[in-house]
Amino acid sequence: MTDDIHLRVVNPNTTRAMTDLIGRSARVVAGPGVTVEAVQPSTGPASIESHYEEALAAVGVLEQVLLGEAQGVDAYVVACFGDPGLDAARELARGPVLGIAEAAFHAASMVARRFSVVTSLGRTAGRAHELVERYGFAGACAAVHACEIPVLALEDPASGALDRVTAACRAAVEADDVDAVVLGCAGMAAFTGRISDAVGVPVVDGVGAATAFATGLVRAGLRTSTRGEYAAPPPKPVTGLLGGFAIRPTRPPAAVPSG
Amino acid sequence: MTDDIHLRVVNPNTTRAMTDLIGRSARVVAGPGVTVEAVQPSTGPASIESHYEEALAAVGVLEQVLLGEAQGVDAYVVACFGDPGLDAARELARGPVLGIAEAAFHAASMVARRFSVVTSLGRTAGRAHELVERYGFAGACAAVHACEIPVLALEDPASGALDRVTAACRAAVEADDVDAVVLGCAGMAAFTGRISDAVGVPVVDGVGAATAFATGLVRAGLRTSTRGEYAAPPPKPVTGLLGGFAIRPTRPPAAVPSG
Amino acid sequence: MTDDIHLRVVNPNTTRAMTDLIGRSARVVAGPGVTVEAVQPSTGPASIESHYEEALAAVGVLEQVLLGEAQGVDAYVVACFGDPGLDAARELARGPVLGIAEAAFHAASMVARRFSVVTSLGRTAGRAHELVERYGFAGACAAVHACEIPVLALEDPASGALDRVTAACRAAVEADDVDAVVLGCAGMAAFTGRISDAVGVPVVDGVGAATAFATGLVRAGLRTSTRGEYAAPPPKPVTGLLGGFAIRPTRPPAAVPSG
Amino acid sequence: MTDDIHLRVVNPNTTRAMTDLIGRSARVVAGPGVTVEAVQPSTGPASIESHYEEALAAVGVLEQVLLGEAQGVDAYVVACFGDPGLDAARELARGPVLGIAEAAFHAASMVARRFSVVTSLGRTAGRAHELVERYGFAGACAAVHACEIPVLALEDPASGALDRVTAACRAAVEADDVDAVVLGCAGMAAFTGRISDAVGVPVVDGVGAATAFATGLVRAGLRTSTRGEYAAPPPKPVTGLLGGFAIRPTRPPAAVPSG
Amino acid sequence: MTDDIHLRVVNPNTTRAMTDLIGRSARVVAGPGVTVEAVQPSTGPASIESHYEEALAAVGVLEQVLLGEAQGVDAYVVACFGDPGLDAARELARGPVLGIAEAAFHAASMVARRFSVVTSLGRTAGRAHELVERYGFAGACAAVHACEIPVLALEDPASGALDRVTAACRAAVEADDVDAVVLGCAGMAAFTGRISDAVGVPVVDGVGAATAFATGLVRAGLRTSTRGEYAAPPPKPVTGLLGGFAIRPTRPPAAVPSG
Amino acid sequence: MTDDIHLRVVNPNTTRAMTDLIGRSARVVAGPGVTVEAVQPSTGPASIESHYEEALAAVGVLEQVLLGEAQGVDAYVVACFGDPGLDAARELARGPVLGIAEAAFHAASMVARRFSVVTSLGRTAGRAHELVERYGFAGACAAVHACEIPVLALEDPASGALDRVTAACRAAVEADDVDAVVLGCAGMAAFTGRISDAVGVPVVDGVGAATAFATGLVRAGLRTSTRGEYAAPPPKPVTGLLGGFAIRPTRPPAAVPSG
Repeated sequence: MTDDIHLRVVNPNTTRAMTDLIGRSARVVAGPGVTVEAVQPSTGPASIESHYEEALAAVGVLEQVLLGEAQGVDAYVVACFGDPGLDAARELARGPVLGIAEAAFHAASMVARRFSVVTSLGRTAGRAHELVERYGFAGACAAVHACEIPVLALEDPASGALDRVTAACRAAVEADDVDAVVLGCAGMAAFTGRISDAVGVPVVDGVGAATAFATGLVRAGLRTSTRGEYAAPPPKPVTGLLGGFAIRPTRPPAAVPSG
Repeated sequence: MTDDIHLRVVNPNTTRAMTDLIGRSARVVAGPGVTVEAVQPSTGPASIESHYEEALAAVGVLEQVLLGEAQGVDAYVVACFGDPGLDAARELARGPVLGIAEAAFHAASMVARRFSVVTSLGRTAGRAHELVERYGFAGACAAVHACEIPVLALEDPASGALDRVTAACRAAVEADDVDAVVLGCAGMAAFTGRISDAVGVPVVDGVGAATAFATGLVRAGLRTSTRGEYAAPPPKPVTGLLGGFAIRPTRPPAAVPSG
Repeated sequence: MTDDIHLRVVNPNTTRAMTDLIGRSARVVAGPGVTVEAVQPSTGPASIESHYEEALAAVGVLEQVLLGEAQGVDAYVVACFGDPGLDAARELARGPVLGIAEAAFHAASMVARRFSVVTSLGRTAGRAHELVERYGFAGACAAVHACEIPVLALEDPASGALDRVTAACRAAVEADDVDAVVLGCAGMAAFTGRISDAVGVPVVDGVGAATAFATGLVRAGLRTSTRGEYAAPPPKPVTGLLGGFAIRPTRPPAAVPSG
Repeated sequence: MTDDIHLRVVNPNTTRAMTDLIGRSARVVAGPGVTVEAVQPSTGPASIESHYEEALAAVGVLEQVLLGEAQGVDAYVVACFGDPGLDAARELARGPVLGIAEAAFHAASMVARRFSVVTSLGRTAGRAHELVERYGFAGACAAVHACEIPVLALEDPASGALDRVTAACRAAVEADDVDAVVLGCAGMAAFTGRISDAVGVPVVDGVGAATAFATGLVRAGLRTSTRGEYAAPPPKPVTGLLGGFAIRPTRPPAAVPSG
Repeated sequence: MTDDIHLRVVNPNTTRAMTDLIGRSARVVAGPGVTVEAVQPSTGPASIESHYEEALAAVGVLEQVLLGEAQGVDAYVVACFGDPGLDAARELARGPVLGIAEAAFHAASMVARRFSVVTSLGRTAGRAHELVERYGFAGACAAVHACEIPVLALEDPASGALDRVTAACRAAVEADDVDAVVLGCAGMAAFTGRISDAVGVPVVDGVGAATAFATGLVRAGLRTSTRGEYAAPPPKPVTGLLGGFAIRPTRPPAAVPSG
Repeated sequence: MTDDIHLRVVNPNTTRAMTDLIGRSARVVAGPGVTVEAVQPSTGPASIESHYEEALAAVGVLEQVLLGEAQGVDAYVVACFGDPGLDAARELARGPVLGIAEAAFHAASMVARRFSVVTSLGRTAGRAHELVERYGFAGACAAVHACEIPVLALEDPASGALDRVTAACRAAVEADDVDAVVLGCAGMAAFTGRISDAVGVPVVDGVGAATAFATGLVRAGLRTSTRGEYAAPPPKPVTGLLGGFAIRPTRPPAAVPSG
């Protein structure tokens, strides 16, 4: 590592090909003076398409942030559209932590009046709506649409994913009368430019947006607040399977999980 | 078990004394025809006072719901005021699942116009606010106050907890001009009646409220919807430490964690 | 009466067949330890399909709560989907009072992420929307649909009501992408199970939900607050036709209307 | 009557002195070309300080609108700050109907950025908040304050009402940092100018505001919509004490109550 | 001028025919005791169909308010549906200032439950939505529709504007299930009565509504607050092209622009 | 110019010292690969402390964006906390345009749960509240406080501005229980680091935040949408003083103002 900003992009699932894709997406945006490191947890589901998988994946995100803190990471991106473990990660990290849903909504609202979200499976739309509300974009988000392509099929050329996502974006722009589209899955990141060219509106990939904003916050001298809610968690015993996640009295924890 | 409604009350932390307290609180309310079983996970933090601990505790909640499904449980209560893992638990359970923050807000809004929340530590107020918004009670909740007593000290007579929580409730009623108070921690459940007598307004304990509502939903023939968001999670590999949580193709999963 | 919880279910209109139907719906849900009494006012409209009728019906609801208080009733259900006279009834009653719109919205939000309402006449949709907002369910309620069947025709087999309401529920689930439906009229209570089976999502009847929740609140030791807004109305002269409703200085009023 | 606009100002309570006061307040504002008629019901409470009294008073408001329709009234003001029976009155009236809370909020938002409400008794604040939300002024209304003076004491010089209401208005402007005040009771109408002079901000009396707006709507050719929600109520039997309020098949009803 | 209320209706664009139309619309509504003066700025765009033109037009509105203040005008209407310069005009004027979007929303909410807006070009819908939110009518406004007729074509019989706007209003009533329509452009004012007759719901022209309300506020003794936000702007140098708009220490400014 | 991102930071007022300060603040944050150019209009007020001055300043902002477009600028910052002319600037610019209030709110919400704003004069708080609502941060912004220091006095050491703003920030953190503060005036940019060190929470300067985000959006390939609302304004005559701002049929306009 150099004097560059060290950005750790965490893929919350355990599929290597998605980690690689996310890393490439981040590096295209990062610009000079930023070193991007893409990682994935030692444990967790192969992809995230339910609340259940998201709860499991949060553990992996926290593992990677604990490891990153031991290495002096400057900023983090949580690269799954449900932003799993985001608030917990903020309690652990010295630098800023951004979720890709969060970052995509912010970015879309800066370049357009109203946006729609096009996501993978319909069952994840509820979480997308929840995050839209949670982050303050209820007035800016017109609708959430699903193209019903499983996450891990997005990169399979045989799935016709690019065409189907493009069609869903085009339909959303017309039906919802919006002037931007947010892609609701990190696995769609490689499609961004082609869909934007095809549809004629800004298309926002959360990985790129989060990369730009997280490094921008570091440059602006901003870190996650340590007053109140995002203060470091108190040291405390953790029993059983997750015992390695116990926070010991001296922070950062010595017992970083071995993942 | 009999023909009774089988209610499983899950303490998301791993402190036995709290599990016992929660069980007693639920049994007082349950009424005839309900069997209450109070359980705790095989893994997780001793108490929950941060987003980090809540993320870890969610895993334990899911373990206990998976086990309960194998036993034919009719309804669940998640007995920590942050409602950890609630949406994920709904994906797993056939019957209704209620969080105690959720239930307390609903109950308070049925017996009063506006309520305030009195919780343990100030750092948990953000989560309480988030849940207030998430469940639709932003117009009904006036404020969230903390008495800065750690969760595990609540039952320690030397902590003066009852007096301090009572004083915080009385102050909230006056300052916020509310006509009810919600207690923001399962560990306060034993105080409910005494505080209500002292302050003169309804005081809502979420464990009791969730017990009443979860069994009521069963009696009304209502179960968590299986259409869309709360459908069972898709079968999928989970690697590493959490591998036992993989959902196998035939649900309910054979590989229930051994906890 | 015994030591049972005494629940008084008030039909705000003056049609005996609906009172009977509502009583049956409540008794199915009430469970052991609850005595359900279904009553109707001595004065008021035959059914409630306008704000005008609702205003007249509120008087009848208050009559029945005043009478109930003289008899020691433990809890009340106001069984018309506009929740007529609900806040006023809370000022009169010692125990909890629940409206069926209120209860149905709460129940639906506990078993599903988003619901739609299917009601009788389109002209009542505005009141339903108002109550959705008033109770905090604007984020959970997707839409209100009418099947344009007058209330008193719902029980007439020749009206084809069951088929038409079922079709409206099915259409709502598809068009609004919701995972539950609320039936917007007490007169639809008998259809609940059949529609749920046909459509495949939870279908919520407010009479059952209010019965479950009102008795649950009693079991949880919760009563309507007497601080501030829901305190007993001050004694005061009432002149003319409604003179029997005057509250005399000693409450409960001696001059209970003779209805 | 002449070609003037015929405005009927309905005092929902049965205290003659308040009817006279309200009439004077309306006439000061009405301007040329408007005839103001102030009326009160034949039945109802002496003043309105609870939901219970408001429910009773709504019946009297509807009586006076039914009578007014038979006389060709052009517009109505409902002159109690809880706006009792407003939606029902709109179903009956050909011309516009305005409540004084509604009108006061509209007027305040036209001459100031944010306002506070100063009302009579604290127990009525909940209704004021509800109307603020219902009419869309949640962002414009900073707070509702009570000076704890019963409605009928407002005109009693011994009550010191003017001084106390003035002090409450001044305190509200400072504490809430608002630039206008709404008086939350028709009985305060005579104080308006003196309080505005004393406090230095616009002070809004709902009777004046509703008079100005109701006549303005008539001049602008606007009437309450008859499509959907505010269509005339359907003809229907009403039994018992309120039988005179039945709507007969030919509207306007022949059976106008004799009040 | 006489003792009449002097109302200055400002057309923010520089097209004389529209100024004349707006003046006629206002005079129809004003009633006895009001003198209507319709004016337009000395500088600005020929019509207003973009944020850019609105920003330019605001300067012209302020010019006309400064001139009006020097003449003792009692109240102002800003007669473009984007309400350009409204807050700034309130800082300058002694009397009330109303925008026509603002006034139309208020009026529609007084005679109907929900309204839709029919505007000229789709690109102005964002501004309409923004004003709906800003003024508190998000719950009352169902949708904003455009008929894609440029502002200056509205008065051209060859444009078929009346028929097209009527059709758009009729479609909005059906599709949105609303009971009123707001016309989203001052240039549609002459169509109001004919569209209302054709569609069967109240159709609100903002020029008429603003005329009625602004004069009503004067009659009710209400002026824009001078406390805080709408206090007169502080004297200050203005350099360059707009130098004539500098506020000199003694207000009103001597250097009123010569427009 | 080089291949660097060309960022034009527009000071909307005409005070050179503030333009210089803003330029310095932006350059500190910009990082490698960005060229920052700080400019001010040829016309407008010396500072912006009212809606009136903001309306005048918007013209100057548009002048500088038109000039920037002729030079191929990649992104713009509008460096006054009222974000004057922002929507209009977006219609003119090819690249992203960010206001400093907008950027500061976004940044604060990324590093903290809730923030308060500390601004210059109390009379500008209304505009700050309006922007908070407009951008979706009503749930994240606790309060807006003023320290009552005129904008141009902020840089005067004799004003004691640093101490007073620091004290106001500290008081806001305690009173509002927030974990970040937004500085509500570009003239406070030089204080940021010192106040953050003194108060112990992130302190957000909008100039830095906007610089980081605007350049980040360029790196992420995002531009203001040209579909619908932010499409280029239609060519149209502008008469009188502002005639130089007419958009000619071929865009970009030949008639850029000579400023």
